[in-house]
Amino acid sequence: MYDLIIVGAGPAGLTAALYAGRYRLNTLVLEKMGVGGQIILSSTIENFPGFPGGISPAELMERMHQQIQELNISVELDEVLKLTSDLKSKHPTYNIITASKSYQTKCVIIASGAQPKRLDVEGEVRLIGRGVSYCATCDGPLFRDKEIVVIGGGDRAIEEALFLTGYAKKITLIHRRGQLRASGILVEKANSNPKINFILESVVEGILGKDRVEAVSIKNVATNSETSLPCQGVFIFVGIKPNTESFKDILKLDELGFIITDQDLNTTLTGVFACGDCRKKSLYQVVTACAEGATAAALTHKYLL
Amino acid sequence: MYDLIIVGAGPAGLTAALYAGRYRLNTLVLEKMGVGGQIILSSTIENFPGFPGGISPAELMERMHQQIQELNISVELDEVLKLTSDLKSKHPTYNIITASKSYQTKCVIIASGAQPKRLDVEGEVRLIGRGVSYCATCDGPLFRDKEIVVIGGGDRAIEEALFLTGYAKKITLIHRRGQLRASGILVEKANSNPKINFILESVVEGILGKDRVEAVSIKNVATNSETSLPCQGVFIFVGIKPNTESFKDILKLDELGFIITDQDLNTTLTGVFACGDCRKKSLYQVVTACAEGATAAALTHKYLL
Repeated sequence: MYDLIIVGAGPAGLTAALYAGRYRLNTLVLEKMGVGGQIILSSTIENFPGFPGGISPAELMERMHQQIQELNISVELDEVLKLTSDLKSKHPTYNIITASKSYQTKCVIIASGAQPKRLDVEGEVRLIGRGVSYCATCDGPLFRDKEIVVIGGGDRAIEEALFLTGYAKKITLIHRRGQLRASGILVEKANSNPKINFILESVVEGILGKDRVEAVSIKNVATNSETSLPCQGVFIFVGIKPNTESFKDILKLDELGFIITDQDLNTTLTGVFACGDCRKKSLYQVVTACAEGATAAALTHKYLL
Repeated sequence: MYDLIIVGAGPAGLTAALYAGRYRLNTLVLEKMGVGGQIILSSTIENFPGFPGGISPAELMERMHQQIQELNISVELDEVLKLTSDLKSKHPTYNIITASKSYQTKCVIIASGAQPKRLDVEGEVRLIGRGVSYCATCDGPLFRDKEIVVIGGGDRAIEEALFLTGYAKKITLIHRRGQLRASGILVEKANSNPKINFILESVVEGILGKDRVEAVSIKNVATNSETSLPCQGVFIFVGIKPNTESFKDILKLDELGFIITDQDLNTTLTGVFACGDCRKKSLYQVVTACAEGATAAALTHKYLL
């Protein structure tokens, strides 16, 4: 019986493990793919405190991994399929079920992360980190004086387009509907910004370029006419998708699948906490994921006292 | 007129500046003493994600400082005496008043930190970092197999004493009253832990040692008898004191002086956010302070859009 099983070895899960190890909890980390989380998609992290000049996400995550190895906590590569509870005892216990095993634990921290929703068009995956980005805060500064395309019509897309005006020379926002879904004040701001142009009622059908992004091909959905637009960057904000499929039968999720927690990161099950990008919250950043991991471990420790 | 003035250049203030700089806000940081915050009191930081083997607080804070210098944000050494508001405009503006100047700004992030309450006894300040500590999570692992004294009788003191049992050989908890103030479950745990001894109705009158802590001198307040107890570490948990004196007339504080915020770090004034140790919250750590700084800057940016 573990004190704690942490699901996910991204920034949130690894920091939860760091704190749990220091609280001397008997802890296991389960990770589906490999240490790191979705931040690995980004090219350079310039906004994690403590790294002037920036750091590659692979290196940062490897450093976090080393820290938990120093505490003799291991990350097991195993995909969590289901969480079930045994509520008979005073403190409930949980079973974490994978394809090959069932693990017993007193507490669970879910740090299973999220992934950006993809457009699912030609060139997209191939050019990630070579002009295709899912994070303006992370990658915006790499596009100083460049021409870029932003895809999406919600608040996030407009906010990120406005953020990118601090760097890019020209931004073309492409959205499949005739109207933006974003809130009025954001739309007004974007409309009055001379750097931002709009192509509405249009979808991107492919991202072109050999080693780096060179253009996007665009189809107008009203007229079916096709054009191509040269650009050096493509920022895709068509939503993120939390990795919470395994928990949907036992925890309360919001309509998009994000885990609902209270201020103390409690899910709807006692002793089960959630942190990082799988959780509904206001800022999805590496440093906020780390802080939530630390807090979830501290609250687990308190709960087990 | 600044977009944003950040009060304090500890982990919260510097990370707020890092994000504000990347959001291209016209930002100034005001700091009373010197870059770093109260974490500088700690000997090694082993629990900040990204630094296997630990890092000295001075180095970590210097690295955060460099990051904001890369964004051309400067830290001005000036002590904030008062915050006043001008609520006439649609978006209110604020004046930050120091001994020599008055600064105008649209938004304020208060990251003024806190300081551990001191015992105010001989040897205490002289032996900080040489056996005297105010943070078990930070410094506990440095006291493996040592004999240590913990001072205090509240939840925090007992929690930290229990945490320290993972490292120390013997812990003597000294409290000035005949009963501990901490919650029952914690007291039971401490009572049943063979590593923890109690000396109640007693105060520490001095911390002894030339280069490192060697003993404490103890007075029983009921009998006035004096004794001395050899030890290698003294952990003091008699409360922390937020640096919020300058804001007490204009913001809502709790009974201990911590700034009250909502989940989005809003204080009781629109456009004034608080983050880090000056704020009422559940975990006071460097990484949580950084995350709140990032979040406060993101919310400032959104507010100014």
